[in-house]
Amino acid sequence: MNHLWFTAQQRTQTAVVTVTANLPNAHTGGAVSLADVATLRVGLAQMNPTVGDLAGNRTLIADLYAQAVAAHCDVVAFSELSVTGYPPEDLVLKPGFVRDNRIVVEDLAKLTGSCVAVIGFVDSGVGNQVASGRPVIYNAAAVCANGAIQHVYHKRLLPNYDVFDEERTFEPGSGEHHIFDVAGVKCAVSICEDIWRADGPVSQQARAGALVNININGSPFHSGKLLEREEMLRTRATENKCAIVYVNQVGGQDELIFDGSSMVFAADGTLLSRSAQFESGLTVVEINVDQPQIASVAPISDRYAEMYGALVLGTRDYVRKNKFTDVVIGLSGGIDSSIVAAVAVDALGADHVHGVAMPSRYSSDGSKTDAYALAEALGIDCRTISIEPVFEAYLSMLAPSFAGKPADLTEENLQSRCRGQILMALSNKFGWMVLTTGNKSELAVGYFTIYGDSVGGYAVIKDLLKTDVFGLSRYVNQRAGREIIPESVLTKPPSAELRPDQRDDQSLPPYDVLDPILALYVEQDRTAAEIIELGHPEDIVRRIARLVDINEYKRRQCPPGVRVSEKAFGKDRRLPITNGYRG
Amino acid sequence: MNHLWFTAQQRTQTAVVTVTANLPNAHTGGAVSLADVATLRVGLAQMNPTVGDLAGNRTLIADLYAQAVAAHCDVVAFSELSVTGYPPEDLVLKPGFVRDNRIVVEDLAKLTGSCVAVIGFVDSGVGNQVASGRPVIYNAAAVCANGAIQHVYHKRLLPNYDVFDEERTFEPGSGEHHIFDVAGVKCAVSICEDIWRADGPVSQQARAGALVNININGSPFHSGKLLEREEMLRTRATENKCAIVYVNQVGGQDELIFDGSSMVFAADGTLLSRSAQFESGLTVVEINVDQPQIASVAPISDRYAEMYGALVLGTRDYVRKNKFTDVVIGLSGGIDSSIVAAVAVDALGADHVHGVAMPSRYSSDGSKTDAYALAEALGIDCRTISIEPVFEAYLSMLAPSFAGKPADLTEENLQSRCRGQILMALSNKFGWMVLTTGNKSELAVGYFTIYGDSVGGYAVIKDLLKTDVFGLSRYVNQRAGREIIPESVLTKPPSAELRPDQRDDQSLPPYDVLDPILALYVEQDRTAAEIIELGHPEDIVRRIARLVDINEYKRRQCPPGVRVSEKAFGKDRRLPITNGYRG
Repeated sequence: MNHLWFTAQQRTQTAVVTVTANLPNAHTGGAVSLADVATLRVGLAQMNPTVGDLAGNRTLIADLYAQAVAAHCDVVAFSELSVTGYPPEDLVLKPGFVRDNRIVVEDLAKLTGSCVAVIGFVDSGVGNQVASGRPVIYNAAAVCANGAIQHVYHKRLLPNYDVFDEERTFEPGSGEHHIFDVAGVKCAVSICEDIWRADGPVSQQARAGALVNININGSPFHSGKLLEREEMLRTRATENKCAIVYVNQVGGQDELIFDGSSMVFAADGTLLSRSAQFESGLTVVEINVDQPQIASVAPISDRYAEMYGALVLGTRDYVRKNKFTDVVIGLSGGIDSSIVAAVAVDALGADHVHGVAMPSRYSSDGSKTDAYALAEALGIDCRTISIEPVFEAYLSMLAPSFAGKPADLTEENLQSRCRGQILMALSNKFGWMVLTTGNKSELAVGYFTIYGDSVGGYAVIKDLLKTDVFGLSRYVNQRAGREIIPESVLTKPPSAELRPDQRDDQSLPPYDVLDPILALYVEQDRTAAEIIELGHPEDIVRRIARLVDINEYKRRQCPPGVRVSEKAFGKDRRLPITNGYRG
Repeated sequence: MNHLWFTAQQRTQTAVVTVTANLPNAHTGGAVSLADVATLRVGLAQMNPTVGDLAGNRTLIADLYAQAVAAHCDVVAFSELSVTGYPPEDLVLKPGFVRDNRIVVEDLAKLTGSCVAVIGFVDSGVGNQVASGRPVIYNAAAVCANGAIQHVYHKRLLPNYDVFDEERTFEPGSGEHHIFDVAGVKCAVSICEDIWRADGPVSQQARAGALVNININGSPFHSGKLLEREEMLRTRATENKCAIVYVNQVGGQDELIFDGSSMVFAADGTLLSRSAQFESGLTVVEINVDQPQIASVAPISDRYAEMYGALVLGTRDYVRKNKFTDVVIGLSGGIDSSIVAAVAVDALGADHVHGVAMPSRYSSDGSKTDAYALAEALGIDCRTISIEPVFEAYLSMLAPSFAGKPADLTEENLQSRCRGQILMALSNKFGWMVLTTGNKSELAVGYFTIYGDSVGGYAVIKDLLKTDVFGLSRYVNQRAGREIIPESVLTKPPSAELRPDQRDDQSLPPYDVLDPILALYVEQDRTAAEIIELGHPEDIVRRIARLVDINEYKRRQCPPGVRVSEKAFGKDRRLPITNGYRG
């Protein structure tokens, strides 16, 4: 393996990669002679910061810089806002926070020698924002060398869509572009969104003579985004005839997963290097005109392997960065809790995962058996706490109020809330974080009990439609080469088991009918009328659309979880709770 | 009373106001002769739309237009995005929704005759947003008359701070300004933020000859904002020597309260008219150069009266617009649940408010007495359901797991969650919305039980610091001229009563120490270090700041509630849950 991979946190690999590339430049007429260009040894510091942890991030950056120096890098690039972690959200509206982050980047600059460090931080400008009265700030990159900040670049294109709110906090950069020499090679720095537009800063920098564009990123993952990014970077490299060093953050931050997969493209669009997805570390790539050569391109995972990797990283980082070690999961014997337990074991280790079976009078024998079979296959602790005594107590206490009223959803919700309360009691007593097991199909139509099965700190599969939960479960068994998730769990009809012989398809259409409608309505912003026009059954579409709308209030009170789609319930989709639209 | 107040929903007043004003214009050299200007009869349609309810909003607009015609108005102005309601949030990202809203505004235009209607709607432009690929849209105002849309104005200044996300969805307008004649008077239209900047569209329009600026708004309330708005409008009128017709939405939309208080300023800065705060209706103002005259200026309420009005409107609209009629409140005998019950009675009527006392072994006799005294004073239904049987059942079921562990917060949280579950069971069985009773001080430091006392649909006083809860309670008694909230509730030391002899000040500093620190840390974005420098005790500040930070995850799962401050927990304050900053 010809890949130099320095460890930021846990992993170490030892081989060295040398990647070489041609460095002509379209805008200088392709007339760059070989004598004009030199060998550039670049470090891509794919780091996993914690948002706000300035001291911790400083240590990560300093350690990776030392490794880059040891590896004889000419330049090392850290990810977007590496000092604060991305996205810092409204933390940057605290002027004191911006001051503190400035001190860190200045201290880091003092550590630098001839190896140039490109470090993301929040820069403060002159004057105040007109509307808010607070100081102007920029999403910035410091080019540091020889003990000082040599230049500061301000991000020019600020994303303000989907999960991004950068126009809320930052001003865009402007003015002349700064092109600087590293080891005789003309370089420029750009930040994330800057590279996504053909007529943006990257082409301006190429026109100004940049042969290498160092683009630092906090680019969140969604399923399939890797290929989208690659396509865009290849286009940007070839249309500007400049090499691109694309460095991305890695790690989970609340709902967002940053998947790393940092890349180097040659000016002719050849992918020279791709770092591992979901793992932190330093990749060293040598760019040289004489011996163009592809090396160290990490393979792309298939859809479910990638999704699983995202869930594991997101869960591990949310739990650990919030200073928890252990989690507790209600095991119903169903597929949702099974896959969540499997992810948790890969994220935290079997010793840190605790299962609880909480049967009621309506639980099938199969469910109890399946819960324990799963726990055994995963090697996790499991206990049983029947909810019958409290369920009985609630029914008696409420009997005077409920006199003359038939049993309905109230009694079903009560059972679910008894379970939620038991999980929270174990959480409180032992310091275990509750992992929530609901999927995106349920979350969409409100097929869950608020304060019941929705309780918890992190909702691992909240952005997976039920059909993907099935696909992912099969992947888990296939990868293990054995039945981690019992086959009976994969084949029995889904049920909440809150009344006798209950099945999901008594309340909802089958998932292979439901999920495509949800994808259109929720993820693609189609109206019910448009979905009906596409040929889906009118009665079902109208009912589903209405359920999605009226359950916004329940989703708002649900825990965060891993975003894997292009539009998750969360910062992607900001709909009013009070909403009279029925289109 | 010389005030023509047409009823949009409930209220009717019958007198007529004629407001007259000089109409010189600074930018045309003040050389406007009396012959150049005519009398302009303006209707200010202070309406209460429901976001997304296109059919309902259309009816409101059509009714108010008919009233304006009946009152011989030359022009009637509706609030910002009156067709969709403000703020529509990501609803406008559905192209089908934008199409549907366009149909409504075109239909409304067909109803118009010689009375000009200025109607807010979402306009679609040509081309797509670069980043997202969706169609370009504008926050727009249609100037309608004689059966058609005569002109469309696009908002130019898009707020993207605090609770606003307009750059996320809208493109700003540009180009020449359109000045139009109404009854011989040169008018221009602007939208909300457009008027807040001295060098913005309003001054450009005045330079282009506008003598009257019709500014339509969706301006959310916070305590004290009315005076801030007035000051700004007076400045804008005098510096441009143009009259300003400021029309604001009224009503609650999720967390935001729109307080109405529509105003008319003369070109010399005189306030000619102010509509009632928190009430919908049409105000008719006649602007005439010959007889300048102030009239129909609704008085400004004092701080607690205004705050109370906001809570009542917010609660009423959230409950009713979400199709609920009744609410249920856990009455602890404490001040928080008492004030929430008082608000609910004013919002919905005593017959629609249900109290539940849920004593435990730790409840004092005083608490039980106080809960019933309150219920009696308010004339609401009240019942008692002891939580002892379920609390006992939980303790027994958990005993094997908890063996050898001392009692701690777990057992306190259990009690709170038993209460939450009883409230939710009553909610499910009877269709009552649970009103949540936590205040901002508790929410800030996490002094509440997630899934316990935080359960509910709407959190009435979530944005009131505890010291304001006291102030507001005294206001309620004073206004009633009798003890609505029992004096003992106002004077006893606050306690959660979850263990023997518990008091809030055993866990927290006294509220008069805590609240000023919270105001600085939460509302004013100061760091702990800065607050210590201001002279607050270091140990307390550090502990409070840490509590605020680590309880972000709990606040995220809390219900929405009325925003009364300049920075509520909600869209105002978007902080990461995973957050390592301790500055």
